[in-house]
Amino acid sequence: MARISTRAHETQFSPIRKLKPLADEARKQGKRIYNLNIGQPDLPTPQAFREGLREVPEVIAYSPSQGLDEAVDALRRYYRDLGIELGRDQLLVTTGGSEALLFALLAITDPGDEVLVPEPFYTNYNSYAAMASVRLVPLETEPETGFHLPEREAMERKITERTQAILICNPNNPTGTVYTSDELRTLKEIVLEHDLFLIADEVYREFVYDGLPHQSALQLPGLEERVIVCDSISKRFSACGARLGAIASRNPDVMEAALKFAQARLSPPTAEQFGLVRLLRSGDYRREIRRIVEEFARRRDALFEELQRVEGAFCVKPQGAFYAVVKLPVDDAERFCAWLVSEFEHEGETVMLAPARDFYSTPGKGRDEVRIAYVLGVEKLRRAMRILRAALEAYPDPGRTG
Amino acid sequence: MARISTRAHETQFSPIRKLKPLADEARKQGKRIYNLNIGQPDLPTPQAFREGLREVPEVIAYSPSQGLDEAVDALRRYYRDLGIELGRDQLLVTTGGSEALLFALLAITDPGDEVLVPEPFYTNYNSYAAMASVRLVPLETEPETGFHLPEREAMERKITERTQAILICNPNNPTGTVYTSDELRTLKEIVLEHDLFLIADEVYREFVYDGLPHQSALQLPGLEERVIVCDSISKRFSACGARLGAIASRNPDVMEAALKFAQARLSPPTAEQFGLVRLLRSGDYRREIRRIVEEFARRRDALFEELQRVEGAFCVKPQGAFYAVVKLPVDDAERFCAWLVSEFEHEGETVMLAPARDFYSTPGKGRDEVRIAYVLGVEKLRRAMRILRAALEAYPDPGRTG
Repeated sequence: MARISTRAHETQFSPIRKLKPLADEARKQGKRIYNLNIGQPDLPTPQAFREGLREVPEVIAYSPSQGLDEAVDALRRYYRDLGIELGRDQLLVTTGGSEALLFALLAITDPGDEVLVPEPFYTNYNSYAAMASVRLVPLETEPETGFHLPEREAMERKITERTQAILICNPNNPTGTVYTSDELRTLKEIVLEHDLFLIADEVYREFVYDGLPHQSALQLPGLEERVIVCDSISKRFSACGARLGAIASRNPDVMEAALKFAQARLSPPTAEQFGLVRLLRSGDYRREIRRIVEEFARRRDALFEELQRVEGAFCVKPQGAFYAVVKLPVDDAERFCAWLVSEFEHEGETVMLAPARDFYSTPGKGRDEVRIAYVLGVEKLRRAMRILRAALEAYPDPGRTG
Repeated sequence: MARISTRAHETQFSPIRKLKPLADEARKQGKRIYNLNIGQPDLPTPQAFREGLREVPEVIAYSPSQGLDEAVDALRRYYRDLGIELGRDQLLVTTGGSEALLFALLAITDPGDEVLVPEPFYTNYNSYAAMASVRLVPLETEPETGFHLPEREAMERKITERTQAILICNPNNPTGTVYTSDELRTLKEIVLEHDLFLIADEVYREFVYDGLPHQSALQLPGLEERVIVCDSISKRFSACGARLGAIASRNPDVMEAALKFAQARLSPPTAEQFGLVRLLRSGDYRREIRRIVEEFARRRDALFEELQRVEGAFCVKPQGAFYAVVKLPVDDAERFCAWLVSEFEHEGETVMLAPARDFYSTPGKGRDEVRIAYVLGVEKLRRAMRILRAALEAYPDPGRTG
């Protein structure tokens, strides 16, 4: 019987992108909009990458399904520079971090299985779970504790016989939380005791501020067979549109499954792999990452400073990634975000934020929160926060709670 | 419990790629191999595409999830040139034809649903079905009838309450069959009577020889709500590594589902979309397609001519795409293909073919068949077929049946 599938119904439109039609309309009317809703940095992609892109041969052919040998080796060198040794068969080039996550989920879950995930979480996890017919079970965290993990017992209470994995994003999108080595140790113990996998989305690995350490899940001793890392070059090289990422695991069965899925889709984009190889072979690729991360550190500081001036707003200073989940003095942040774009303007300008409610799966949570992606330069960010202040002052009373 | 999923176990390694380790070994020993196992054309990607690739902005950013507006419009113009009108929301840019197929399956099936597919079929359908936990039900076709569809009743007998769609590849990979308008009409009647969808993989649309017409499923009147077309620029523009394709449907619910899946993976590759726009805006892009298709017509003729000289081989002249399924006088074509690569050589050269067995899901079928992808120039093809002849003469007797 011809019908749209249940999993299609259960997949949500991206809340990050759902205000786009309103924004398009506002722009048509001449309004200038500061886009803080989506994790798309404004920084140039490194020149070496762009040069490599041009080195693609005359026949733009499929690459091997696991990626060009040179690209796999370049990524292995990148990991080695981080102190992480990966064999030839322990890493596979994916079409963005998104595909890495899809492969990870498909490799270790069947329809009806469950995956624990700290909440709030990156909304697209919901979509991938729906596409894979898997249930995400939230581990509730709170703004007041900087969204750090709940107590071990609270996490273990969520484990059922269908639980296959814990999925973390570290540093975290949307909260900016960087998990401590104590937290990672707790996760490791849970994973071992309950015979689970740990899927770690580490696409923001280098975006860690204040000199905090970042420990990759691949560096957890004793967990080699349990860890699957999803990675992407999108953020650290400001190359979101390149659609290159990686899945890495020391579990040979996981990598065998990933290779089979990879063969089904034939090849990640070829030209971009030439870009990546050229970039990672340039000795100073880490300088490019530093340049990008230092800029985001400045932005984080500016954002946090400005947020202190927003009456009724609350946010623990984010430690990593380039997001913050901020409580606002409104009763319905989604309505407020829509109003911001379509009704409000301050000297012809306004701000686009992502309502945080959709980053939660627990009903009622995050209603008064927004996610701010600090992907614009310091001056623009400060300007955007001043607009937010003006907006909160102008927001019609019934919607204010502060 | 940490385990690899059933769907991962059920996904197969690509049979097209599984002889690669043997081939790598043979090449190391200095053997020259003619690769007729994989659908990777040797023709240059059009210059306009390569120029467009360089026009990607300084920040290689996500494109909209449905593709750059310009890319969507360029593809709509391409369809309009074929006489097919598609609205803005009836087409979405995908990461290759593979992703289009994944989105189509996920949009209209839930785990356990069934999809009918003429057999032999493109092996990666198996992988996508496994990933989507969907069962492919084969509609058996025969070499002697050029792999045309079975009688209507035989097809209808395969329909159960779980059947959601019929999936065709037209022109067909691996058989080269181009379905007649009578066959398409029969499919239409079945689809309507049994309330199904028709998924049509038309990535070889222009590869039709001898002046035969090709009718797109999008041109079947009365089936607008039931048709989902999966498309790709890989073959017609010899741009396999570009990873650009499209999903097209006039069913708004299908396209809504596809957009949700597309948003989950954020964006198809951006630089290649600039390439595509530049190419499709060049007035003579159809000349590029003609140049490629005419070359394949010559190859098809040369291959077929040479196959007549291979004693014991059987193949109806393929009408489209760039594949042929050929019966060989051997009892186990998979063993023969492995032997060809690793044991045999003729003046330092050999041939790599794809065993056809894996293009079948019915046990025992296709054992004595191979798929030949005629992706090399005429002289190389003739040479490869002479090598095949010599190989069959040299093949140890017990394996020969002819």
